[in-house]
Amino acid sequence: MQDDLIEKLIEQFRTLPSVGYKTAQRYAFSIIEGKEERAKRFAETIIEAKEKIGFCKICGNFTDKEICSICQKRNRKIICVVAEPKDVLAMEKVKNYDGVYHVLFGTISPLEHRGPNDIKIKELLSRIQEDNVEEVIMATNPDVEGDATAMYIAKLLKPLGVKVTRLAQGVSMGSDLEYADEVTLSKALEDRRQL
Amino acid sequence: MQDDLIEKLIEQFRTLPSVGYKTAQRYAFSIIEGKEERAKRFAETIIEAKEKIGFCKICGNFTDKEICSICQKRNRKIICVVAEPKDVLAMEKVKNYDGVYHVLFGTISPLEHRGPNDIKIKELLSRIQEDNVEEVIMATNPDVEGDATAMYIAKLLKPLGVKVTRLAQGVSMGSDLEYADEVTLSKALEDRRQL
Repeated sequence: MQDDLIEKLIEQFRTLPSVGYKTAQRYAFSIIEGKEERAKRFAETIIEAKEKIGFCKICGNFTDKEICSICQKRNRKIICVVAEPKDVLAMEKVKNYDGVYHVLFGTISPLEHRGPNDIKIKELLSRIQEDNVEEVIMATNPDVEGDATAMYIAKLLKPLGVKVTRLAQGVSMGSDLEYADEVTLSKALEDRRQL
Repeated sequence: MQDDLIEKLIEQFRTLPSVGYKTAQRYAFSIIEGKEERAKRFAETIIEAKEKIGFCKICGNFTDKEICSICQKRNRKIICVVAEPKDVLAMEKVKNYDGVYHVLFGTISPLEHRGPNDIKIKELLSRIQEDNVEEVIMATNPDVEGDATAMYIAKLLKPLGVKVTRLAQGVSMGSDLEYADEVTLSKALEDRRQL
């Protein structure tokens, strides 16, 4: 038995991804136990973010400006194509990448009835024609759908004379060969390089 | 590199307990990708909860009323004493407990400079005198501080003629004897009951 308003707050936290009842309850209690100022700032930031954050006109990534800070400042001749906004964040951990991004918002997936027209491929094509792009790096996930999407886009782009590359596949740094799966090992062997 | 407002939203989610950057980012993206309606309801509930939820005048637990729904409806002659509001939720899983609670908001802890006057013991004493209480169940955690607090309160209450009990300690249901620690096993042996 718990008062309705506490339950309501817990319910709201449960709408966040992978948050169960127990975790939601901890979050709710931390709000109730915290300062009023903090709860207010939290709520206001949610409203403000939802109101102001939209899509970058160029790459499609989330931004609170018309054109995101990456597209504004960096080399537009190299485009790294990713499936989701969170993949941009992952790629940004590579500090010396100076190109821009293109977010597809999905991958081609016949099983989930998503074809090439359901993701932002048209937008990528028009960028390539406008910006005189030299290289497109396909950074979709190394799985069946990601590979299929990369292959499809590569086929579309080659006639335009753009260099299309794909992230290398192989054993990951710090991992243990003993536990690597056979597909990864066979890729690593295939793409071996000279020392 | 990420736009300021997205960072600001991530920062807010990081203020929740045990939420790291990655998790905060997932939460932030779920808000940005979700419907405007949902973000609004989320923010409003946080504000409303923080504004309206206070302490129950009787047991001290969180409530949005003057007197919480447990104190309103249940048998006030039995009081279960807990350290924190979250412990009330834990005890409420026991469906057939019909008594009320008392939240101490802490335990006696010399190491953290918390003495008997820093937790709500005075309030418990006045409830016992007012409500003609028959039994006080000490449900502080089964650790050093919880035990010390239970002992301290029991000593205070005995002269008042109230029955003071403590949650039984022993091996937990579904656990494995092989992995039980020796203190738990010795408690279980000591408090063994006839079949």
